[in-house]
Order: sequence, then structure tokens, then C-alpha cells
Amino acid sequence: MHIIYDVEEMTETARGWLAAGSVGFVPTVGHLHTGHVMLVQSSLLTCELSAVSILVNPVQFGFDEDQAHYPYSLEGDLQLLDQEQVDVVFIPRPEEFYPAGFSFQVTPSGPLAERFEGAARPHYARSTATAMTKLFQLVRPDVVFLGQKNAQQVALIRKLVRDLNIDVSLRVLPTVRERDGLAISARNHLLSPSERQAVPILYRALLAGKALIEKGERRRAVIEKAMIAMIATEPLVKLDYMALCDPDTFELMGKKMPPRLPDLLLAVAARVGTTRQVDNILWKSDGYWLT
Amino acid sequence: MHIIYDVEEMTETARGWLAAGSVGFVPTVGHLHTGHVMLVQSSLLTCELSAVSILVNPVQFGFDEDQAHYPYSLEGDLQLLDQEQVDVVFIPRPEEFYPAGFSFQVTPSGPLAERFEGAARPHYARSTATAMTKLFQLVRPDVVFLGQKNAQQVALIRKLVRDLNIDVSLRVLPTVRERDGLAISARNHLLSPSERQAVPILYRALLAGKALIEKGERRRAVIEKAMIAMIATEPLVKLDYMALCDPDTFELMGKKMPPRLPDLLLAVAARVGTTRQVDNILWKSDGYWLT
Repeated sequence: MHIIYDVEEMTETARGWLAAGSVGFVPTVGHLHTGHVMLVQSSLLTCELSAVSILVNPVQFGFDEDQAHYPYSLEGDLQLLDQEQVDVVFIPRPEEFYPAGFSFQVTPSGPLAERFEGAARPHYARSTATAMTKLFQLVRPDVVFLGQKNAQQVALIRKLVRDLNIDVSLRVLPTVRERDGLAISARNHLLSPSERQAVPILYRALLAGKALIEKGERRRAVIEKAMIAMIATEPLVKLDYMALCDPDTFELMGKKMPPRLPDLLLAVAARVGTTRQVDNILWKSDGYWLT
Repeated sequence: MHIIYDVEEMTETARGWLAAGSVGFVPTVGHLHTGHVMLVQSSLLTCELSAVSILVNPVQFGFDEDQAHYPYSLEGDLQLLDQEQVDVVFIPRPEEFYPAGFSFQVTPSGPLAERFEGAARPHYARSTATAMTKLFQLVRPDVVFLGQKNAQQVALIRKLVRDLNIDVSLRVLPTVRERDGLAISARNHLLSPSERQAVPILYRALLAGKALIEKGERRRAVIEKAMIAMIATEPLVKLDYMALCDPDTFELMGKKMPPRLPDLLLAVAARVGTTRQVDNILWKSDGYWLT
């Protein structure tokens, strides 16, 4: 496994890959867990070369303000990636990635940028889009592997590569869960035992929404109300938002959804203790659920 | 010569080039003239493949609002490029290049974006940066050929590829001029005979500034005043700005410049008849002028 810290070296390395076959890429902010391992293994299975990026010091990157307060072991992440036999790990130095005088931002507009995670976290959409654009130029991947857990990030990146004509394809893998449904996340280690027990209510609420929809319920308010009521039974879980929306645009569904459902994202976010928890499930109009 | 209108076809074609050797690229908004021919010939001489893009309907592209009113013959441009034996001409369809729901902009900040051309033309910097980012993703060039005449565009693109880590190198060619110093431009055809005779005062003013600097004058105001006074002798030429600035950042020089000059751009813009005229000369601290 080759570790690259230098932006120039990454550029040179990626240039050498252009004639070498397909390059798979897993962008991360470190704190790697089973969800990331699934992404890495998919890349290793399907691409000739696999690269993982770790943007350490996410506050500086404006990338995930939340994670800055977590205890972090880069060594642990590197060990894990080494075991998987990743080809390259790219850990750009913040002062090189965003040098003095840095003055271009990739700025999205519309609900995808402004709602939900965009409303909850300042600069969320812009910093994600800017960092991803830069990483895609540096690593020049053919395939980018993303987790469905961050549904809004997936939608943002999908729109980004389409609008800016970046020649990468995305592969989105399902959320990895504990036995009780808890979506795996680096933040879960920060939960107290009672908080840990409370969080899976989010997933159960999503499944309750799914059950209502499967029974034929199409009134958005009825479905949302049932899900919100369920979450309210756990006083440790402070709901931020609950949404039934288009998974590509993040436009809310109409008040009454059609009998034959289009693609539909059920997304939820909440505060639990010191952590922010997000989860979602996805109905594909092809006729199946991604849970 | 292969003409590509389709964004998807351009992506596929460029993907095929990745293993094929160096790709040279000349981005244009059509209205090709001798200046463009020089860029194209440099590409043909130094790269294995050469591509030219023509963004027609520039208003829609927000790319050069000015040119929309010019009579335009795409056929003429294509004939010229065919004679030069360009490999590919890319003429994206506006509705595909900026599709419905397009929602990402590449947004620069700072003097480079806000001053001079940025102040004179709405969205100048943002639309340039966004269009160039997209073209670079689509064409995937190794070398981009630009004319020094559009000094601010050169500086913007230089900063863009650095900040977003786009792996292209820039080659900037000197301004091509008529015998009397007039910088060649598509707009010159719109000048009346008397206007045509008046415009070269801009270049003569730049050369007057150069002469003062060579004599040792370092007071910015003195140099500017002399140049402005010279331009004022031509009533048909309405000065917009005259600037002594850093050619990379477009920060104005200090009031008193140092004896040993750093890189220095003398830039001018004016209205002449219905046209907007820009020109510049450049001092390189290596010890020579680009005029």
C-alpha cells in the first residue's frame, strides 16, 4: 500500500494510471468502519486499482464539522486499509489542499444544497462539492464508491458530476447496519449505553413508514406523523427532520403521492447525546426497497 | 476533422484519448481570427491531438455577452479549422451544456473575479470558470492554449486549474497585432473607419507606459496619468479602466513600485463605437516584455 500526502505526487500518480485500467475510489474523512470496508472491497473486486482518500482535520476542510471533535487514530485507519490491500491512500495536507489564497468554490444551488443537511450544517453542500471536485481531479477515478447512508451527499455528487461533466461513474452501496438496525457510523462510539439503545428507533420509524406505504397509504402527512410519533417515544432522540422526498433533487413529495410510487427517499436526522444521527431508506420505482 | 456536437460523444472520445498521447486544446467562442490560428498551430506543432471548442450562442453560455450581437458564420470558422487540420472541433449544444436544472457554478472570489473585466461584465468570472471547468472535464486536455490578449481570463484559468487541481498545463501566446499595433479581435470588424484609426491609441498608450518604466519611473500615478492623457487625445475612445497590476492576482501595484520590478501587467479597456476593446502588455521579472 502506497501512502501519498503530496498533492503533486497524487497528480503524477493518477496521470500514470490513465493508461492502466479502471481506477476505483473511496473518498472518506477517516474514522473508517465496516461501511467503508464494504466500499473498499467493492472497489477491489471490480477495479484494477483502488484508491482511498482521507481528509483529516475536517473542520479545516469544512467537510464534516461534526467529526472534528471525535478522537481519531489515523494509524488505525491505515492498518485497516493495508489489510484490505488498497493500492493507494491519499491523505492531502490541508495547507496544500486549501492553500493560502484559495479562491474557487464549487457552489450548488437549489433544494439539494439548501435543505436538510444543507440547512443543518453551514457550507455543507459547497464544501462537499468543492472537495469532491478537487479529489476527482487529483485521483482521476473511473468509479467512485459511496454509501447510501449519506443520501444527500450521494445526490449532490451525482448532480455535481453530471453538471460539471466529470467523467466518473458512481456506485452506491446499501447502508451497513447492526443487528438492531442501527446504521453503522463512527459517531456511534460516542453514544452512552442508553443513547445507543435509543437510536435504532430512527430505523424502526423508517420501516414503519415503509409498512404504511406498502399497505397503500399515500398521504405524506399521515406517513410522516406516524414516523414522528414513533420517534417521540424515545426522549433521548431529538428529531431534526423527517422527510419524504425525491432522492435526486431532494424536493419534497406532494401531499398525496401517486399509487404507482416514483423513486422515494425516507430520510431522518436527529440529535442523540452529543452526536448527530442520519438514516434513510429508499424506494426504487423499479420495484424494490433499499433499506 | 471530426465535429462533435454531443456532450456524451465528447466524453467518450476524450476517454479514448487518455492512452493516446498529449492532447492540446483551444477553447473559443467562435469568431476565429489570426490570434486563434496561432493558438491552433501551436497545439498542432506540440501535441499529438488537437481539439478546438466553439461555444456558440455565448449569451446563453454567459461567456462573452458582448459577442452575441456580432454577425457570425460557424461555417467560416469550421473551414478555417479544417484547413489547419485540427483533429476535433467540439461545439456543444447549449441545452446540453447547461441543461434544465443545471445547478453548480464554479465561483471565484477576490480581485481576479471582481475587478476590471469582472466589474465590467456581469458573471464574467463565474461563467468563465464554470464553462472552462466543464470543458476541461469533457475534453481532458494535457495542454490548453490561451492568448495573452485576454490577460484576466488567463489569470483566472491559471488560478482555477491550480485551486481545483485540474491536471492541465497552460501555454499562453503573445497578442497578435496589426501593423499599427491594433490587437486582432473579432470585434474590429464592427469599427467604422475613423474608429478603426482611433483604437491603436490604446496600444500606443501601453507602449508609452512601458517607455516611462524603462526610463526608471516607478510612481504608479505618474505612469497611469501619462497613459490616460494619451488616450484622451482620441475622443472616439472612451476609457473604461487603465491598470498597473499583478498579472496573477490582479491586485493593483503599490503607489511606488520597487526599482527591481516584479511581474507587471499594464492593462486597458475602452469603449469604441459599439465595441469594447481590451489590450495589455506584460513585464516579466525574468527581464523581458510581452507586447
